[in-house]
This record gives sequence, structure tokens and C-alpha cells, in this order.
Amino acid sequence: MKVHNFSAGPGILPAEVLKQAADACINFDHLNLSLLEISHRSKNYEKVMDEARAIVKELFEVGDDYEVLYLGGGASLQFAMVPYNLLSENGSAAYVNTGVWATKAIKEAKIIGTTHVIASSEDKKFTYIPKGYQIPSEADYLHLTSNNTIYGTQMHAFPESPIPVVCDMSSDVFSRKVDASKFDLIYAGAQKNMGPAGSTMVMVKKSALGKTGRKMLSMLDYQVHIKGGSMYNTPPVFPIYVTLLTLQWLKANGGIAWIEDLNNKKASLMYNEIDRNPLFYGTVATEDRSKMNVCFLMKDPTMEAEFDSFWKAAGISGIRGHRDVGGYRASLYNALPLESVQVLVDCMKEFERKKG
Amino acid sequence: MKVHNFSAGPGILPAEVLKQAADACINFDHLNLSLLEISHRSKNYEKVMDEARAIVKELFEVGDDYEVLYLGGGASLQFAMVPYNLLSENGSAAYVNTGVWATKAIKEAKIIGTTHVIASSEDKKFTYIPKGYQIPSEADYLHLTSNNTIYGTQMHAFPESPIPVVCDMSSDVFSRKVDASKFDLIYAGAQKNMGPAGSTMVMVKKSALGKTGRKMLSMLDYQVHIKGGSMYNTPPVFPIYVTLLTLQWLKANGGIAWIEDLNNKKASLMYNEIDRNPLFYGTVATEDRSKMNVCFLMKDPTMEAEFDSFWKAAGISGIRGHRDVGGYRASLYNALPLESVQVLVDCMKEFERKKG
Repeated sequence: MKVHNFSAGPGILPAEVLKQAADACINFDHLNLSLLEISHRSKNYEKVMDEARAIVKELFEVGDDYEVLYLGGGASLQFAMVPYNLLSENGSAAYVNTGVWATKAIKEAKIIGTTHVIASSEDKKFTYIPKGYQIPSEADYLHLTSNNTIYGTQMHAFPESPIPVVCDMSSDVFSRKVDASKFDLIYAGAQKNMGPAGSTMVMVKKSALGKTGRKMLSMLDYQVHIKGGSMYNTPPVFPIYVTLLTLQWLKANGGIAWIEDLNNKKASLMYNEIDRNPLFYGTVATEDRSKMNVCFLMKDPTMEAEFDSFWKAAGISGIRGHRDVGGYRASLYNALPLESVQVLVDCMKEFERKKG
Repeated sequence: MKVHNFSAGPGILPAEVLKQAADACINFDHLNLSLLEISHRSKNYEKVMDEARAIVKELFEVGDDYEVLYLGGGASLQFAMVPYNLLSENGSAAYVNTGVWATKAIKEAKIIGTTHVIASSEDKKFTYIPKGYQIPSEADYLHLTSNNTIYGTQMHAFPESPIPVVCDMSSDVFSRKVDASKFDLIYAGAQKNMGPAGSTMVMVKKSALGKTGRKMLSMLDYQVHIKGGSMYNTPPVFPIYVTLLTLQWLKANGGIAWIEDLNNKKASLMYNEIDRNPLFYGTVATEDRSKMNVCFLMKDPTMEAEFDSFWKAAGISGIRGHRDVGGYRASLYNALPLESVQVLVDCMKEFERKKG
């Protein structure tokens, strides 16, 4: 049976990418060798790395003032690397706290230097995006989290900032048009819209680096990785290759304009049903609803067990909410087809009929 | 044509493991989902992580005083994490410098704290293993590198140490019997004997941790990863799974005793030919020759181009030496069959006949 994969991350990847990934495990690039057992210094793999770095700049429409890296360790390592590379010894950093991941980023920044939380939605359990806050002009940078996977909120606009902006886009990168030139640094764990788990994309403006005065450990220094062409050490070879395939799939199908339109359709279909169906309701401020992670609850939680059997029987997978929120979360990442959302919506309608 | 893969790393993996890896890209664990698109918190993947951690302790024959982690970032990140976790604020660390990787480990340790190089073979371009050195009893730990991939040397015995021993076993882990109980910490980038690139195994004695007094960044703190069951953050899901498959292959075929015997046979076959064949010679001290990376040169370097065409025609891949050493390097990692070594040796004999 076909599975409709709404997993919050690692998330769904295009079927054709998975097929190409499987093929590369057996015979990569006609070498009669697996991608898993060749040197990352081979010209066949250097081409993968070059293309994987270039396609990010192409999709973000930025020039040679930016560099792209693929690093191991996950976005969680970036929570530390960002302040380590950008927060000067006597400076400060400004953070907006919009959920669990932002909170973790703040915790690491505080270990490294003076860190101010200039806005937070913690007062309402992160169910909205703070707006209209003052950005301190003396801070080294402003850190944002564009989408909140757990609570299901998303920044639909970014603040005008007098200081460099850093953004964790792990859960909505390449899901919509963004003016990347407004950011000094964008990072994203690959395992939602970009590829499988195991590598994190970092796009950084070269002019932002080398200013902290800090003596740095090599592996935590963006400039070391840039100098090494993102191969200072052995990179996560296979995850980066599958990321390249996924971004090539995105580009070949129409790029950001195409996927933004599709993602809008999927989110509308989903939220319209939540708002219409008397059995369900959304959990976050309407204007801040995420188009990637749709969180909703049942008005009568005692019906949950029955509803769970119902959607499971329809081949739906991965819509149970995060343990901090409960209820349901449908993640609508790039590779999820509109048909899967329709199946879930039909399931909700059917369940309403059954109960009514 | 069958390729004989002598790559120095990422290196050869067993054909049956590659087949299982490809299958998991399409349908993992009968879920009708790819391993690349499922949650690492699913019970199907938690089982993989549990087994991958357990099999390391089983193969090393250690008990519950040790913990096993799989981390992103490569062994290069461990060059920093080891001193960060073990070198106390007012203490010192002792390092033995046996090549490029040890040199890099020393560089990172020096950024973190007082680091003494207590022995080195740099005087002879790392062509031997230092022995008989004094280990300072007041140092926090002694750091060793068991095998030198680039120069082709290997520690065939480890020194008796009055202080905890840390060992980078990236290029010879699980290639032979080692008394793991003599080490407080063993780490290994997976991409040689353990699996594909993208994860690094760390086995650490719990009692060694928590003593530095250092306020630590979460992702660099072994105790944080231990507490999270090696899933504090999203792990490199696929690389760890393929590592598990590779270690299961090792165990199913007879474990460490079996592979050590096979590796001895491969190394003997190779070194015997180098010593016998008048066209070639080995580059390192005979008693310190690596059984994993066999480095050799041609007595007449003008013959190299012709020899290169010759072995390439036989389906041999990846025996060009590292750029720092030149000549040839045949890497005989666990998954390389004896037959491949025989093909290379036959090639050398054939070339000798041709030239003689």
C-alpha cells in the first residue's frame, strides 16, 4: 500500500530521488563502485560537491559574496558555530525566541558571549510570531528561526534589521521565495526540504567572517571549511549527494516559484479543512500559521484513538503531534504531493460523517 | 568489469552490505518508506541505533562502564572534542605524533589547553613508530593514533600507560584484536573499516568524563550525547545504519579473530611481493608496517606511468599514493577480499616479467 508520509523530519523525499540514491549505493557514476566506498577526493565526487554548493546559490539567487558549506553535526552544531564565528569577544547577539529550536540556539550563544533575547512568544506557548520589536543596533547580529516545526508557526515576513541577520531555516528552506541577500548567514539541517539526515547547509556572506578576535578550533571555523571547499575533512558523502539530487528535482520541476505555489495549495487545503470541520481546530495564531507544519487538535480528545485507526487505515503516516503539543501535526514538506494532503482531508471529512 | 577497490578512505564495503543499503533507500524494514525519509525517533530506527551501539561493545568485549556514540563531523571534530572533554583547565595532555592526523589532533588540543608532544617520528618523515618514550604521570591523558593512513605505519603494540589512554583508530578499528579495556576513549571515523562517511564512532569510559570544570557547548559534550542515547539531535541516520550492517557482516563471518587472520594474510601477500619484486620497495620501518595501508615506491620512478596503465587494465582502483608521499598505497581494509590483493600481486609480477 502507498504510504502518505507526513513525517516532521527526517521527512519525505521525492520517489525518483530515492531511486537514484539506491542506484548510487550499487554503481555510482558508471564507476562500478558504490558511492559509499569511493574517495571524496575523486573527481566524480568533487563534481557532486561543487554542484551541491552551486545549486544553493542559484536557488537563493545570490552571488560570489556568499559561500555554501555542507557540514556534519546537524543544525544543533550551528547553534554553537554561529556565535563562535560571529559574536565578538566584547560584543553581543540578539535572538528572537519562537520555540524549542530557538531556545536551544540561545542556550549555546549564552555559553559563548553576551546574548539578549529581544522578543519571545514563550508567554503563549510559542503559538505566535513576535512582531514590532526593537533590534539593538549595537549587537553583532540578529538570530531568527523562520519556521517552528514543533508548534507550527512561521515567519511570513522578516523584520527590517539594522544589523546582520542570521536565520535557521531548517524546516522551511527552499519552500518559498526569500530575499536571501537580506541575510548574512542562513543555515538548515538538510533532513526536511533538502535531503536526508547527516548534513547541514550553511550559506554565509564572506564579509561577515573573521571579526570576532577569537582563536578558533578548526572544525568550528567557517573560514577553515570555506578554504577547504567544504572538504576540510571527509564530508558526509552520501547525504550531500542525495541533497544535490533533491535540489536538482526541485529545480527541474520549476524551482522556488513552482514549489511555493504547490506549498500554498497544500497548506490552504489543510487549513481550510481544519477551520471547516467541527471536530478539529488549529492551535496557533491564524496569521502565523506554518505552511510546513500544520498543528491541530480534536475538540473532543476522547475521539483521538478512533481517528488514529481511521487515518492509519488510509495509509497516512507520521501525523501524531510532538509530545510537547499533543494532537496532530501534518508536515507538508516540498516532496509531499498535493494528493497526500487530499487523502488526509478526505479522511477528516469521512470521520466527521461517521461521527455525525 | 569487477573493480578491485584499494581506496584509502572512504574505503571498500562488503557487496552484500551495499545491496542492503540500496534496498533500505527504497523500502526500510517493510515500512514501504525509505530509510532516508523516516523519523529517527521511530521505533524502527531506535532499534538500529541501539544495535549499532551495542555491537561496538560486543566486538570490543567491554562492559557497561563504556558508552558508545555515533557523532557527525568526522574524526576531525574529535580532535577538538577529546581535549574539550578530557583536558582539565589547569591540566595537560600528552600526545604521540605519528603523522598528519596526529599533528592535526595536537593542533586542536593546543587551542584548548597545555599539550605536550612526548614522542614524534617527524624526524624521519613519519616512517616509523616511536617507542620507549616516557609518559608523564601528571598528564590528564595520553593520545595515540593507532594507524597512519598516509605514511603506512601502525602500532603493533600499545605502550603501558600510567594515565588514561585515548586512541584514534579511524583507519584500523576492528581490523585486529585489541584490549579495549586499556583505553578510556577510542574514536574512529567510520569510512574505512566501519561503514560509509558521515559518522564517527566514539567509545568512552563513563568515569573519564565530567572532570574538566569547563562550561561546555552541548554538541561538544560527550555527556550530553550519552544522556540523549546518541540522539541528542538528529543523527546521521543512513551512515549509522550502513555501519551497523558492516559490523553485522563482520560478526556473522567470524568476528575479530576471522578478520585479523584474513588481514594478516592480505598484508603478508602484499609485503612479500614488495620485498621480493626487484622493481618495488617499501617506504617504512619493517617492524612498523601497517596491515591496513601498504605504501611502496618503484625503484625507477620513470616506469610509473606504464605501471599505472598496467594495473588499471586489471581493474585495480585507488592505489596511487597520497600526494605527500607519492608512489603507491594499497589499502587493505576489512572488506577487501584476498583475491583483490592476489590480482594486484599478480599484476606486479607480470609487470616485472614484462620489464625484465
